[in-house]
Amino acid sequence: MALASPALSLLQTIFHGNALSTNAAECAVYAYDNSRREAIPEAVVFPSTHAQVVALVGVCRDHGIALTARGRGTNTTGASVPVNGGIVASFERMNRILDIDPDNRLAVVEPGVLNADLQTALKAHGFFWAPDPTSAPFCSIAGNIACNAGGPRAVKYGATRDNVLALRAVNGLGEEFRCGKPTTKGATGYDLTRLLIGSEGTLAIITEATLKLIPLASGKRTLRATYVDIAAAAAAVSRIMAQPVTPCALEYMDDEALRLARNHGGNAIPEAGSMLIIEVDGEPDALDSAIAAIRRAADGDGVIDLRVASDVDEVATLWAARKALSPALRTLAPNKINEDVVVPVSRVPQLIAGLKSISARHAIQIVTFGHAGNGNIHVNLLYQPEDPVQVANAPDCLSEVFDLVFALDGTLSGEHGIGMAKREFMPRALDAVSLELMRRIKRQFDPDGILNPGKLLPD
Amino acid sequence: MALASPALSLLQTIFHGNALSTNAAECAVYAYDNSRREAIPEAVVFPSTHAQVVALVGVCRDHGIALTARGRGTNTTGASVPVNGGIVASFERMNRILDIDPDNRLAVVEPGVLNADLQTALKAHGFFWAPDPTSAPFCSIAGNIACNAGGPRAVKYGATRDNVLALRAVNGLGEEFRCGKPTTKGATGYDLTRLLIGSEGTLAIITEATLKLIPLASGKRTLRATYVDIAAAAAAVSRIMAQPVTPCALEYMDDEALRLARNHGGNAIPEAGSMLIIEVDGEPDALDSAIAAIRRAADGDGVIDLRVASDVDEVATLWAARKALSPALRTLAPNKINEDVVVPVSRVPQLIAGLKSISARHAIQIVTFGHAGNGNIHVNLLYQPEDPVQVANAPDCLSEVFDLVFALDGTLSGEHGIGMAKREFMPRALDAVSLELMRRIKRQFDPDGILNPGKLLPD
Repeated sequence: MALASPALSLLQTIFHGNALSTNAAECAVYAYDNSRREAIPEAVVFPSTHAQVVALVGVCRDHGIALTARGRGTNTTGASVPVNGGIVASFERMNRILDIDPDNRLAVVEPGVLNADLQTALKAHGFFWAPDPTSAPFCSIAGNIACNAGGPRAVKYGATRDNVLALRAVNGLGEEFRCGKPTTKGATGYDLTRLLIGSEGTLAIITEATLKLIPLASGKRTLRATYVDIAAAAAAVSRIMAQPVTPCALEYMDDEALRLARNHGGNAIPEAGSMLIIEVDGEPDALDSAIAAIRRAADGDGVIDLRVASDVDEVATLWAARKALSPALRTLAPNKINEDVVVPVSRVPQLIAGLKSISARHAIQIVTFGHAGNGNIHVNLLYQPEDPVQVANAPDCLSEVFDLVFALDGTLSGEHGIGMAKREFMPRALDAVSLELMRRIKRQFDPDGILNPGKLLPD
Repeated sequence: MALASPALSLLQTIFHGNALSTNAAECAVYAYDNSRREAIPEAVVFPSTHAQVVALVGVCRDHGIALTARGRGTNTTGASVPVNGGIVASFERMNRILDIDPDNRLAVVEPGVLNADLQTALKAHGFFWAPDPTSAPFCSIAGNIACNAGGPRAVKYGATRDNVLALRAVNGLGEEFRCGKPTTKGATGYDLTRLLIGSEGTLAIITEATLKLIPLASGKRTLRATYVDIAAAAAAVSRIMAQPVTPCALEYMDDEALRLARNHGGNAIPEAGSMLIIEVDGEPDALDSAIAAIRRAADGDGVIDLRVASDVDEVATLWAARKALSPALRTLAPNKINEDVVVPVSRVPQLIAGLKSISARHAIQIVTFGHAGNGNIHVNLLYQPEDPVQVANAPDCLSEVFDLVFALDGTLSGEHGIGMAKREFMPRALDAVSLELMRRIKRQFDPDGILNPGKLLPD
C-alpha cells in the first residue's frame, strides 16, 4: 500500500535524498527480522538527528500512520516487523558514540551504535557494557534496550535493564523527554527509564542512551564440565549458584546441542550427555581460588570430566561451538520454534526432565542450551515442515512447554522478548490486572497506538 | 476529624480488636516520620494478611478515604505523613520472612520485616541484601522499596531498585497483582516491579517482596584517607571510581562533619580538611592487591594520611562516627535542612566548591558527607531558628543548592526520595513531559488519588 501523498510530502521535508525511501526493493529489506516473519512497510526513513525523530512521530500521529523503530533486526520474535505496514525508522545512521566517560563509568551513544563497536571502543578505556548477546557484532544498542537483551555475562553483570542510566526518547504523542540521570543512584520520581527498557518500541522511540560501564577484569578462567546426562548438569548448575563465587558465564548445552556443535566442525567438542562452560573473572591473584571453588561445585554425581581450558585456543573453540548453535539449528530445521524461557535456577532440573517428556509425547525433537546460571534456557522445538504430524503437533507441544514453565514459576522470555511471537501467551504469563496496567500505561505514552502496533501486548 | 461511621463499621469487619485504632493517642504515634512533619490520621490499621489489604483499599476507595502505607517512618521527607488525614496502614505486624532460598539467591518477605533482621537471618546462609541505609536496624523492607533506599554498599551492589526481583501489590482500585518473577532475568512485558520501587506508596501497596540476594564476601579491608581540604578528597573520589577495583563503600565527610563526629565521642576521628572511608571486599587472596589499588588511587595532591585500619575496633570506630552524623547534626541544629543530592562522580569537586560559595553568601553553615562513590552527597543546611536572617535566607540558599546540582547534571535525591519535602522542586528536576507521564501513570494505578496523596508529584 502506498503512503498517502500529504504525509509523504511532509516526510520529504524532514528526510532528504536517500534518507527516505518508498522503493519496493528497499522497503523489502526492512520488512523482516530474525523471526522469519515479514511485512512490507510503505516507506523507510533513516533519521540522523533527534529532531527528525520528533518531527517524524508528529507526522505519523497526525496521519494515523504506524511507526516501527528498528535497529538491525536481529531479534527473533518479530518485534521489528512492521506488521501494520506504515513507516519503518531504521537507526543505522544514528551510530555515533557521543561520549566515553571513564571517570563516571558511563558512555553516551546514539541508538544505532552496534554492540560490538561499542565494546571495542570501551576496551581501550578498560571498560565494557554488560549485555553480550550472540548477535553482538550485528545488533544495535537501542535494539538491546528495546528487548532488554542479555547474554552469557548477565549471570554476573545483569542484563540491559541493569546497565542503563538514562534515556532520551520521543513518545507516541511526538513529545520528547529525558529520563534517568548520568548517576548510579536516583530517587526522584517514577522509573521511566526502566519502563522503556524492554518495551520493544511500543512506548517511545529512543534517540540517545547513557549506559553504565563496568571495569574489565584483568583475567578470566574457563572450565569445561561434562556430564553423563542433562539432569546431572542441571544439578551442578544449582550447586554452582548456591556458593559464593559468581561465575561471569554459566552456559549449558544438552547432548543434541553438543552433537550439532561437533557436526559443525567442532572436533574439540566432547561427546557427552551435556556440557557446561563456566567462566570466572577477576584480578589474577584471585582466579586460582575462584576457579577451584567453581570446580568443587561443578563436581558431583554424573560428572565425566572437569577441565580448565589450557589456552586461549581451547577457550575460543568452546565458545565458537556455543555461539554456532543458533545458526546450526536453523540449518537443521527451518521450522524450529526457538524459545528462551526462564525458571528459578533450582528448577532447571525439573524443566529439563519435563521437556524430555514433552518431546517424547509429541515426537518432536527438543534441543536445549543457554544461560543456565540465570535459569534462562533456550528451548528449540525442531520439526520438519514436510511432516504433517509434527506440524500439527508443534503448537500443542509449545503450549505444554509454557505450561511446564509457568508451573515452575518461570516466564515466557528471559532475554528475547515478546514481539509478535509470544503475544498470545501473555495472558497466561501475567495476571489480568498486570496486563491491564500495562495496556493503560501504553495508552499514556501512545494514545493512538501508532508505535510498533501488534507487538508485546495481546489485542 | 473522625472517620464517617459506615466506613468505620466496614473497617471493623476487616480489622478486629487491636488491629484497628481510632484512639487519639495511638493515632498521634502514626502522625509523623523522621521529617519532623506530622498530620494526625483518623484511624490506624495493622494488617496481618494480604487479603486484609485488598479489603482495606476497597473500603477506602468506596468512601474516598486517603490511605497511607507506612513502614517504620524512618524516612526524612514526610513520605509517610498522612497529610490528608484518612487511614494509616502500618505494616509492623506483617513481619515474617517467608522464605530464604540460597539455591536461587532470593528471599521472600512480608513488607514489615526490618532490614537488619533480614540481614541477620541471611548471614547464617552466607548472603546479604544490598540496601544498607543508616536506619537499617529500624527501617522496614517495604519502606526501603517505597523510597528506593540505598546506603554505603550501593556503590558496588546497587540500591533497592537493583535488588528486588518480584512484588505482590494492591493498586488504588483495590486490584491485586504480582509483577516480576523469582528469576534474575525477564523480558516479558513492561517492568512494573521497578515502576513501583521508589513510588513511595503512591501507585500501589506492597504486600510481599522477592529480594535478590548477594553472597557475602569472605573478607573486607578498610582504608582511612585524610586530606587537607574537601577539594582534595573529592578529586581522590574521582580517581578511585575511574580505576577497576570497585570499593564496597566510599564514604566522605567534610571538615565540619569530622569535627562533629569528634565532639560526639569519636577521639579516634582525625582532625582534617576531609576524610574518606573506603572499603573493599572479596576473597582473602584478592584483598591485598585490591586495597593496594585503592590506596594508589586515593593518594595524590592534598593527602595527609592513608591508613589501612589495623583491627575491627578501628573499623568500628570509623563507621560509628559516620553513622552518628545524622543524629548529631539534628541535635546541633534542629532546623537543619537535610538534602541528599546526587551528581556525576566527576562533578563532586565542583559541587563541593559551589556549596562553599553558597554557604558563605547566605551565612548558613553547610555540612556535607555521604556516599561519594555514587556522587550522592548529603547536604545539610544548619540554621538557628532564633536567627531571623538565617531563617529568611534558608529557602533561597536551598534553592541555590538545587540550581547548582541541576547545573552539574545531578538530581534532587539519590536515596531519600521526594515525599512532601521536595515535591515543589520536581518541575525543576524533571522536564514537563516526564512529569506529565508520571501523573498519567499515577492515574492508571490510582484514579481516585487515595494512595498517599500529597506526595512525590507536585499538585
